[in-house]
Amino acid sequence: MAKLNWGMIGGGEGSQIGPAHRLGAQADGNFVLAAGALDVDAEKGRAYAQRLGVAADRAYANWEDMLEGERNRDDRVDLVTVATPNSTHFEITKAFLEAGFNVLCEKPMTMTVEEGEEIVRVAKASGRICAVNYCYSAYPMVREMRHMVRTGQIGKIRLIVTNFSHGHHGDATDADNPRVRWRYDPKMAGVSGQFADCGIHAMHMASFIADDQVETLSADFASTISSRELEDDAMVNFRMQGGTVGRLWTSSVAIGRQHGFDIQVFGETGGLRWASEQPNQVLYTPVGDRTQIMEKGEAGLSDEAARLSRVAIAHPEGFPLAVANIYVDLAAAISGDARDGLPTAEDGLRSMAAVYAAVESAKGNGAWVDARPPMFR
Amino acid sequence: MAKLNWGMIGGGEGSQIGPAHRLGAQADGNFVLAAGALDVDAEKGRAYAQRLGVAADRAYANWEDMLEGERNRDDRVDLVTVATPNSTHFEITKAFLEAGFNVLCEKPMTMTVEEGEEIVRVAKASGRICAVNYCYSAYPMVREMRHMVRTGQIGKIRLIVTNFSHGHHGDATDADNPRVRWRYDPKMAGVSGQFADCGIHAMHMASFIADDQVETLSADFASTISSRELEDDAMVNFRMQGGTVGRLWTSSVAIGRQHGFDIQVFGETGGLRWASEQPNQVLYTPVGDRTQIMEKGEAGLSDEAARLSRVAIAHPEGFPLAVANIYVDLAAAISGDARDGLPTAEDGLRSMAAVYAAVESAKGNGAWVDARPPMFR
Amino acid sequence: MAKLNWGMIGGGEGSQIGPAHRLGAQADGNFVLAAGALDVDAEKGRAYAQRLGVAADRAYANWEDMLEGERNRDDRVDLVTVATPNSTHFEITKAFLEAGFNVLCEKPMTMTVEEGEEIVRVAKASGRICAVNYCYSAYPMVREMRHMVRTGQIGKIRLIVTNFSHGHHGDATDADNPRVRWRYDPKMAGVSGQFADCGIHAMHMASFIADDQVETLSADFASTISSRELEDDAMVNFRMQGGTVGRLWTSSVAIGRQHGFDIQVFGETGGLRWASEQPNQVLYTPVGDRTQIMEKGEAGLSDEAARLSRVAIAHPEGFPLAVANIYVDLAAAISGDARDGLPTAEDGLRSMAAVYAAVESAKGNGAWVDARPPMFR
Amino acid sequence: MAKLNWGMIGGGEGSQIGPAHRLGAQADGNFVLAAGALDVDAEKGRAYAQRLGVAADRAYANWEDMLEGERNRDDRVDLVTVATPNSTHFEITKAFLEAGFNVLCEKPMTMTVEEGEEIVRVAKASGRICAVNYCYSAYPMVREMRHMVRTGQIGKIRLIVTNFSHGHHGDATDADNPRVRWRYDPKMAGVSGQFADCGIHAMHMASFIADDQVETLSADFASTISSRELEDDAMVNFRMQGGTVGRLWTSSVAIGRQHGFDIQVFGETGGLRWASEQPNQVLYTPVGDRTQIMEKGEAGLSDEAARLSRVAIAHPEGFPLAVANIYVDLAAAISGDARDGLPTAEDGLRSMAAVYAAVESAKGNGAWVDARPPMFR
Repeated sequence: MAKLNWGMIGGGEGSQIGPAHRLGAQADGNFVLAAGALDVDAEKGRAYAQRLGVAADRAYANWEDMLEGERNRDDRVDLVTVATPNSTHFEITKAFLEAGFNVLCEKPMTMTVEEGEEIVRVAKASGRICAVNYCYSAYPMVREMRHMVRTGQIGKIRLIVTNFSHGHHGDATDADNPRVRWRYDPKMAGVSGQFADCGIHAMHMASFIADDQVETLSADFASTISSRELEDDAMVNFRMQGGTVGRLWTSSVAIGRQHGFDIQVFGETGGLRWASEQPNQVLYTPVGDRTQIMEKGEAGLSDEAARLSRVAIAHPEGFPLAVANIYVDLAAAISGDARDGLPTAEDGLRSMAAVYAAVESAKGNGAWVDARPPMFR
Repeated sequence: MAKLNWGMIGGGEGSQIGPAHRLGAQADGNFVLAAGALDVDAEKGRAYAQRLGVAADRAYANWEDMLEGERNRDDRVDLVTVATPNSTHFEITKAFLEAGFNVLCEKPMTMTVEEGEEIVRVAKASGRICAVNYCYSAYPMVREMRHMVRTGQIGKIRLIVTNFSHGHHGDATDADNPRVRWRYDPKMAGVSGQFADCGIHAMHMASFIADDQVETLSADFASTISSRELEDDAMVNFRMQGGTVGRLWTSSVAIGRQHGFDIQVFGETGGLRWASEQPNQVLYTPVGDRTQIMEKGEAGLSDEAARLSRVAIAHPEGFPLAVANIYVDLAAAISGDARDGLPTAEDGLRSMAAVYAAVESAKGNGAWVDARPPMFR
Repeated sequence: MAKLNWGMIGGGEGSQIGPAHRLGAQADGNFVLAAGALDVDAEKGRAYAQRLGVAADRAYANWEDMLEGERNRDDRVDLVTVATPNSTHFEITKAFLEAGFNVLCEKPMTMTVEEGEEIVRVAKASGRICAVNYCYSAYPMVREMRHMVRTGQIGKIRLIVTNFSHGHHGDATDADNPRVRWRYDPKMAGVSGQFADCGIHAMHMASFIADDQVETLSADFASTISSRELEDDAMVNFRMQGGTVGRLWTSSVAIGRQHGFDIQVFGETGGLRWASEQPNQVLYTPVGDRTQIMEKGEAGLSDEAARLSRVAIAHPEGFPLAVANIYVDLAAAISGDARDGLPTAEDGLRSMAAVYAAVESAKGNGAWVDARPPMFR
Repeated sequence: MAKLNWGMIGGGEGSQIGPAHRLGAQADGNFVLAAGALDVDAEKGRAYAQRLGVAADRAYANWEDMLEGERNRDDRVDLVTVATPNSTHFEITKAFLEAGFNVLCEKPMTMTVEEGEEIVRVAKASGRICAVNYCYSAYPMVREMRHMVRTGQIGKIRLIVTNFSHGHHGDATDADNPRVRWRYDPKMAGVSGQFADCGIHAMHMASFIADDQVETLSADFASTISSRELEDDAMVNFRMQGGTVGRLWTSSVAIGRQHGFDIQVFGETGGLRWASEQPNQVLYTPVGDRTQIMEKGEAGLSDEAARLSRVAIAHPEGFPLAVANIYVDLAAAISGDARDGLPTAEDGLRSMAAVYAAVESAKGNGAWVDARPPMFR
């Protein structure tokens, strides 16, 4: 397969997200970094892009220049990754879609539901791919769980319980640290703190594995560190369209938890359990029987799990290769071989609708509210 | 120490709870089974009691006979354990307290809040011990966690997250099994199913470790197996009097979970984690530092944890010895050496108040309601 | 069942082993402590025995008095537990057997192979029970593993790998502590340190589960703390009579390991894994299939595992109840209902033969030597 | 940094090792696959190389052509990876070193000790890098353990215990499977089966972390499946030059073990434990203190661990990125910034010396033999 040209906006030197995307895009040799506007500091961004191998004329000062520079090239980038600050995702994603580029947008895709609906409409009109980086859904064993659900191996799903909790914002003496503080400041983070940051990953995961959508929810938010305006801990109960009951806890003050993202799926004839810190195993329990340890790479897994795994059973594959799997799916989709596992603008929109619904519910003392975007009601 | 005379009501042959109490009472040699009314079938109960070493004249046909037989004996039982069906706990406990006996009542102590308040009043008036068997609180490492909280080792508690979930009622084809069905039938189980059965253990544990009480709560109940009138899955958010945020999930349809009772306590300066399936360890994380594995029996634990542990570090002690620790505390209290760890009638009352509050909230779409018994408001 | 009279030698106040035996003997209500010679300090021992409920005339000053006092009583003790310092086990056990008592001896049963053979002969001649406290073999799930092996569920056993390692003697600055030092001093501990202390538990376990005996072995001993004359770390390779290959590592300087006793059994059609720190689970892997988590108390276990478990699935049972299971088997055997799981004098003898064989091999640079007692060759 | 040109020999379509190397070389963008002789089937190899982006004139029919084609190019490859069948490693590695190329050779580097010494000499004479792919040593937390040892954090090392056991060759009915059979056939595998395949990884790891070398060893080999000429299970005791005691168990018939590669390092003042299935954590126990859970990415780790980690704490990184870390070190070394962590020809030679020593010892009933290559004695 010929290599695809890839462009990146944001993810400059010293960012956390940049290396993950570069590794993800390049790991399987599908993409070559051909263009970039990597930094708000135009000179730093241009210099860094060139150190990463981008030609000088495609190392842009900002995303507007990149849009202009790329749109008329014959070898224009096949995919643009948007890894800028959250509040800019909407504008940039929209502009590139309208110009006919495929886009992978970091989450959250937008800051409002209205913007989310706009992206969905623009993406549809453009005929281009608009993906959102819910990368945990691309772990092989997560795909396997979805496959098991779809093929009826645990029966109709009754209950999903998911957590995404860590303790990295649990030190009140660190609350003024700018890397922490902005997440709880509505001027920068929008209407929600921890739920918008981590909770929506868990909610996407629930929908992804259940192959169903959240319909209503009830939320309880808390700012356990009192100086925080936005929540640092949230519990969201929900119901899916198919009737599944959902429980979602997310926290940033769970001192001792590192990356406590896990999900339990309970159906009529079996249960599944998975945790992101040991992503290569799934615990599967047929009703009335013993729990079995499923392993990435074992014989008999679905094609979906098999194709997203690179090395043999019990050789662990981690987070960067889950991101890489998003790029594997993007490369396939760009080449006309689309799979339905790729998270899309619709997923990004649903997350934003859930955030606003949770905020409304939490303010309303846990009242149950519709969690669907207006356009999908 | 001279052995104490012990009487048991319920817990007959074939019951699950009987062996646990007998082992608990006898493990440390403090109690001798001296009297019993063990079975609704009077003859079976009398015969079984005698096989267990009870003298013929103290092997009673029923609790009323036992009350009459024991009340005027010089060597009357020092403690009565009530392990009968739930709906009879109130009447029996009350009668024995009024007759001047010390009582250990199985949970739930009563079926209503009013009954619970009555027991609290009667116990107080009698001057006798009325304990309730929240035995998980008697694990050495649970006592250690409470000690750490009380001595400020994790600072003011912000957040408690506790689960008590299993999958043993997850088979819908087994739903007519009488051992399962009654728990979801309000005629037999009262107003609540899974929350009253398991959830109140978790709620007691939260209060016990935090050394604080639940003030308000919001609940979401679900009957995931539709033939069930009462809930088989519940989520309860709560606030404690001191401001701590609480999250409690309980389920009986979590297929694959065996005895999924765990608790996480997050304070200003540290976090603690404990799980009932590995009760001899606690994970302790000072804020900003590494997680440490604490072990039952290690040097430097509190007196409370040390005195409730029988064998050396890393030799596991399990559930029956947690029950035994309740009896250790009872023997001490009867002998005039009371400790404050023993769960009391007030705990039994608070549980019942929480059950009714959760039912009210769940019916009210998650409205926040007062979870305190009227007499403690 | 009428209670059996039980006598104890050693296990005085402050000892570790005393409480474990008392709890074990009394937990299930089968035995009553009727006589004792608990301490080398006669007065202390007599006083303590009486505090434990022993009548004054059966609270003996020493084991010789107890032998004389008990031998002619009609209600003489049905079982004597020998929990004295190791070097006295032989003499006491022999004397009580010869006087017609049943004996449970702590390990090691003797200090030499010759003494071990003598005990086997005396026990046989007496027709009495002589058991040795290899209590780990009485965990329900260990019995289940033996049942699985015997019923062919993992095929012929190819390989057993077992470890018993801890780090509690790993602090060289603590090496002069008398509780530690004696174990590495041949004047007190005999020919072997860590292998005789912990290794023989692992070797007994291998024989017990495999239902086979060690025939030859090769050992490598090390004194990693140089002031120690006896080994604090040992590796023993062995072959069983049926051809099974064995690997046994034991250490007391494995800093961080608490009670690292585990065993892995690999047969032609499956594998089993068990660890003493989580004794209620077994991992079972049929060849070519997924690993299954077996749980104490689950449906379908053998009668042997079921009868030695007291509480429901996933309610953990720990070390003291494994000791109690030895007493359960003793009570049954005394009452004429013998099971073959009880470790006997022959097991005690085989351990001593293995110790001497290992010492000889280690001195001979790992030469393979016969590990069988002469009387069983 | 300008990208380096990379060439690969072996690792053709369908191989397991090929994808791991390509991902490893390309993950961080340091290398571009510029040349290859990927398959014994020349046409298949040339076609596949071109699909991977290699120019037609550098998609070679065999390694001899590649050597000729590349040696005189100005843009000749900066690094050649040798991932061919084991018996060809020596010849190819030697030829490329002599022609002035840097080489990364898969393990085992050679089939004999003599060949190993020859490679060491040739590498030294050439002044080129000759690395061997002991990739597990490149996990960040493995490097951290070595750093801790070097900086004295656990004191002088007394004892190392390491296992590398799996059960993937445990099915005797699969023993004729060519992918399995060759490993136990001396015509194809050489003098050793499982020890040469997996055991040398564990032995390298022990030397790597201890920063010391194995001096003598004693081995016990077993062919637990009788049709196998070479061992499928081995135990090796060893002593390091500094006096450290070593225990190494390796097996391919440990049914249920997936990738059971772990290591425990016990020093005078602390212990370390690491397992390859959870490579992002280390358990660290200071003597007399609690065990701490160390996490990849936590604050305060060594520069070495930090530079080899790509994503934030608790985002797992797996096996492919450990291979990538070997390439990170190679890129640095090629660019003149050599680190001492890179496994070299000397490591490859020491492994082969250990293999021959173990075979000799096993045949000599466990006699202790010198494990050092003659040139290092």
